[in-house]
Amino acid sequence: MSRPSLGPFRPIGVVRSPYLTLDKTPVQSSLVPLASGTIELDPELADALHDLDGFDYAWLLTWLGPRDGSSPPEVAMRLVPFFLKRQPREVGYLATRSPRRLNPIGLSLIRILAVDPPNVNFAGVDVVDGTPVLDLKPYVTRFDRPRAEPRCGWFDSVALEDGATPETLRPPGE
Amino acid sequence: MSRPSLGPFRPIGVVRSPYLTLDKTPVQSSLVPLASGTIELDPELADALHDLDGFDYAWLLTWLGPRDGSSPPEVAMRLVPFFLKRQPREVGYLATRSPRRLNPIGLSLIRILAVDPPNVNFAGVDVVDGTPVLDLKPYVTRFDRPRAEPRCGWFDSVALEDGATPETLRPPGE
Repeated sequence: MSRPSLGPFRPIGVVRSPYLTLDKTPVQSSLVPLASGTIELDPELADALHDLDGFDYAWLLTWLGPRDGSSPPEVAMRLVPFFLKRQPREVGYLATRSPRRLNPIGLSLIRILAVDPPNVNFAGVDVVDGTPVLDLKPYVTRFDRPRAEPRCGWFDSVALEDGATPETLRPPGE
Repeated sequence: MSRPSLGPFRPIGVVRSPYLTLDKTPVQSSLVPLASGTIELDPELADALHDLDGFDYAWLLTWLGPRDGSSPPEVAMRLVPFFLKRQPREVGYLATRSPRRLNPIGLSLIRILAVDPPNVNFAGVDVVDGTPVLDLKPYVTRFDRPRAEPRCGWFDSVALEDGATPETLRPPGE
């Protein structure tokens, strides 16, 4: 695409996670409610965390692209998400939560355990150690919860096992 | 901060909205469940929308910074959010949903009305017309809903009126 680049985007910190490789990292934070990690913010941002301790949950926005400044790899318009690897079945990338997207921004619902500026300890880690943090926003039920029980497309037809990782979701022998 | 810039981030489309100025734009999509808008994606992305029509809700990620390539304005570590203007009371920016943040990424829960590639018609518009789109992710209840009724910090102590805008939330005479 020829559109101009937006930004600049700069990391405001990094995630410290028990997971060191993508293949063994849980695919969604809600599937690992007990795994805990730490957001280490730039010390300059310590004061920006004031009042966050009144919230139980937050949205963690992360950068899932290459960290060396190179462009993200080519993105396919359709892909087979981890949860459909065994069928296998392709869906549009904008109907998945795959990290392989044109702007690879991760969105994780995390449970706040302790706010200790400039750090935040949290439960529900689904990113690799060292992942750059773009933003952190408080979870607000009135803003973030649909008013009814929503349809969730192809996710409604698959089992979302606790602790699922790319490794556990891969078809046998692949 | 001296950390290297991440990216590049490129718009994948724009939001067509009935709101033309920030001051009259609702501050959160859930407060305007009936206002509708359109996401006009780059035509190259039409196929990426395949299967999105099975979902009732999605997360719309937008770029809320300057559109001319210049750096976002200086960000204060604490600010008075729109909903606390009348007190007034400052809170850490990472405990707000304010657009004035180091990486000004907007996160809106939208209700999908129709998927008509490369466009998506939706309810719950809380951005100005022409806002660049960074990403669109399906809402998945299992991933995006806390397991219990969470504390929502200072939001629990303010009235979140339907249709609230910066203009309606401003103290009289300001």
